[in-house]
Amino acid sequence: MNHFLDINQLSKEEAEALISRALVFKKSSNYPDYSQHTVANLFYENSTRTRVSFELAANHLHMPVVNLDLQRSSESKGEMIEDTINTLSAMGVSLVVIRHIQDGLPRHLAGQCGNKLHIINAGDGKHAHPSQAMLDMMTIVEQKPDLKQLKIAIVGDVRHSRVANSLQYLCALLGVGELVLVAPEIWQPQIIHYGSVTPSLQKGLTNADVVICLRVQRERLLANEHFDIERYHHEYALTQKTLAYAKTGAMIMHPGPVNRGIEIDSDVADGPQSFILSQVHNGVFMRMAILEALIQSTH
Amino acid sequence: MNHFLDINQLSKEEAEALISRALVFKKSSNYPDYSQHTVANLFYENSTRTRVSFELAANHLHMPVVNLDLQRSSESKGEMIEDTINTLSAMGVSLVVIRHIQDGLPRHLAGQCGNKLHIINAGDGKHAHPSQAMLDMMTIVEQKPDLKQLKIAIVGDVRHSRVANSLQYLCALLGVGELVLVAPEIWQPQIIHYGSVTPSLQKGLTNADVVICLRVQRERLLANEHFDIERYHHEYALTQKTLAYAKTGAMIMHPGPVNRGIEIDSDVADGPQSFILSQVHNGVFMRMAILEALIQSTH
Amino acid sequence: MNHFLDINQLSKEEAEALISRALVFKKSSNYPDYSQHTVANLFYENSTRTRVSFELAANHLHMPVVNLDLQRSSESKGEMIEDTINTLSAMGVSLVVIRHIQDGLPRHLAGQCGNKLHIINAGDGKHAHPSQAMLDMMTIVEQKPDLKQLKIAIVGDVRHSRVANSLQYLCALLGVGELVLVAPEIWQPQIIHYGSVTPSLQKGLTNADVVICLRVQRERLLANEHFDIERYHHEYALTQKTLAYAKTGAMIMHPGPVNRGIEIDSDVADGPQSFILSQVHNGVFMRMAILEALIQSTH
Repeated sequence: MNHFLDINQLSKEEAEALISRALVFKKSSNYPDYSQHTVANLFYENSTRTRVSFELAANHLHMPVVNLDLQRSSESKGEMIEDTINTLSAMGVSLVVIRHIQDGLPRHLAGQCGNKLHIINAGDGKHAHPSQAMLDMMTIVEQKPDLKQLKIAIVGDVRHSRVANSLQYLCALLGVGELVLVAPEIWQPQIIHYGSVTPSLQKGLTNADVVICLRVQRERLLANEHFDIERYHHEYALTQKTLAYAKTGAMIMHPGPVNRGIEIDSDVADGPQSFILSQVHNGVFMRMAILEALIQSTH
Repeated sequence: MNHFLDINQLSKEEAEALISRALVFKKSSNYPDYSQHTVANLFYENSTRTRVSFELAANHLHMPVVNLDLQRSSESKGEMIEDTINTLSAMGVSLVVIRHIQDGLPRHLAGQCGNKLHIINAGDGKHAHPSQAMLDMMTIVEQKPDLKQLKIAIVGDVRHSRVANSLQYLCALLGVGELVLVAPEIWQPQIIHYGSVTPSLQKGLTNADVVICLRVQRERLLANEHFDIERYHHEYALTQKTLAYAKTGAMIMHPGPVNRGIEIDSDVADGPQSFILSQVHNGVFMRMAILEALIQSTH
Repeated sequence: MNHFLDINQLSKEEAEALISRALVFKKSSNYPDYSQHTVANLFYENSTRTRVSFELAANHLHMPVVNLDLQRSSESKGEMIEDTINTLSAMGVSLVVIRHIQDGLPRHLAGQCGNKLHIINAGDGKHAHPSQAMLDMMTIVEQKPDLKQLKIAIVGDVRHSRVANSLQYLCALLGVGELVLVAPEIWQPQIIHYGSVTPSLQKGLTNADVVICLRVQRERLLANEHFDIERYHHEYALTQKTLAYAKTGAMIMHPGPVNRGIEIDSDVADGPQSFILSQVHNGVFMRMAILEALIQSTH
């Protein structure tokens, strides 16, 4: 594993090994010293939570971190991202964590830079967010290790969600018994990688062991006057009422940040079935496992 | 001490212990290793000087630090600050240093997050700036330990000053002999926590051992056409002339950043009686004492 | 060497010692521990590449680094830069790396702060960029140590280039055999520190061992309607064709970031004669040598 770009680059064994290693990190308090490996955070889109999660993961492994403020960077001097990557590599950076609005950019950069450094996709456009999918699956496996017996429902704007994309591939790879994508028609995916689609929240949630609620991306909706946010809440939000469609004690998950009162009600997000903060907690350990797997691929 | 929110949460013994500990740190060059405790700086308002002071304090104690750039953060995605705090806690952050324009927000957040992490108020609106008051008092105690015999004058926009608020509580707590708040009528406080108020700089400074000059907050004044900055300088600025009202060799202090030629003249700010840079220097040690006291409260 | 401001402050021995030390760092993997010395990056102008290079150099030497985001800093509260420097010094910062649009500001600040801390000029206006010149020369010396026998050509906007200024002084100091400054008339320097000037690219490149291509500063050109960028490319760009004017195997250098297709074509920038990424790579070691030389001057 020279880069971490997409779930569909991983073998089943690699995905399982990452989850196992992350769970070991979670139980440990003494971490290996990888201080020879410097991480650069290249966030062209806002994401405090993902950036800080990678930064803390690197801290635990004693890796130095440099953060690039790309509003004020050489980008504004017209430098190509390829040159930024090559420059960081020449400076001795080993790992580049990149978030960018452009689908497929991390894979393109990985193709350019060869073995010089490791590219980690921290979310590219509507394409993929593989570290999020991995930490989600880690959180599920911790509670319900028999994935073949599971029904997972993903609810929301599946069409534009990189998280939903990566989760579909991961559910397929690890053999999740049933995956249902619940979305209003305009948000149903044009291509389904795994599972089935339904517009009915009740149908989708029936018998579900895990419900993953997607964020309503309000930024994007400002341009879409026809979207009725109250109607969405009425038909698709996770509330005490709709939660009852799922199995008793079903896990409730959300990649964050949460829009309370829109896609999920506060009493569900903060309730006993919520694993939202467990996802965040596990995220640091999963990112440690990813960073380690990449630098070990060098040797 | 689970959080550091306000001077009036402290007992006299706690305040004295913090000052003693900060003075020990100042004389030492070998600091304890608290590398298990991560600090997050959450600055919703600009303050390079306070942020860097906490960052250097954490560095000395081997605590990793993450800085959140909150112009570009999940805030802009509509996340509540409470969720940001809970997310940081779930990621393993132990201490959150917060500056925010809203009075009382740090206390509110501390109430929400319970024992999960330690909140440090680095300035909230017009309410409190307790670490500034503590480093001011440390600087005074170093020079003039017999607080009962002291007269301290605070000069300027007392009404809108969180520093003046916190200092009043601290002077009361530690038994400072006399505190005088000197301000033009529009800037006199509506509630006095300790001491007396006068509009007369001469009367306020007479016999003062310590003069603490407040910053004219020019940002705020742009909205106030009736404020006459030249008249303010004439009547309230610390100059060679007005300095003569105070005791010979009185300490001159200022929380910074200084507006030279407005509330204080350069020859006073840079003169032999100025302790402005001593305040800055002591600030790092005081913040080390605060960080340590909080993490020790966990055990 | 108490500050690092300008090439013409250096003796020949000091410049040679910095290059030697940087080359030793390059071959080593175990660096001294200078963790008692904190570096502050004060970048009033954008420069991710120079800022990150200094940050990585400090990391290698175990020096803590604080980055000041000066768009959001106390500057906006009207504090003078001198006060920012004095504040950092009072907080225990040992080394300040400063980039600023104002010519001569680092020297001015060094004059103000005396021995309290070390100022490093990371580029001031059109005046100087001495660490860039040093890393350029390190890259040349590595390949062609007999400087007396060399012809170096610098091509581009010599008039407004701090890099070209610093390189002229360094070529004079170290006795480079021949230096030619190639520029269209409007970009020829008003004062020449060393070497000769020509408007002819062919004449300038003839027999050159090293060609240093300067960036076209497009930011600045937006205000200059009369500049014809296509004509510039035709007459002054480094292309496969113009490269043939120079000696076979001449080194091609550029301080970056590169404007591909403007001052240099991609097949030259990425070609076998390009040392652009070597410059970036050497930059970290040169900055380590500079940081070390400054803190050793204290003892």
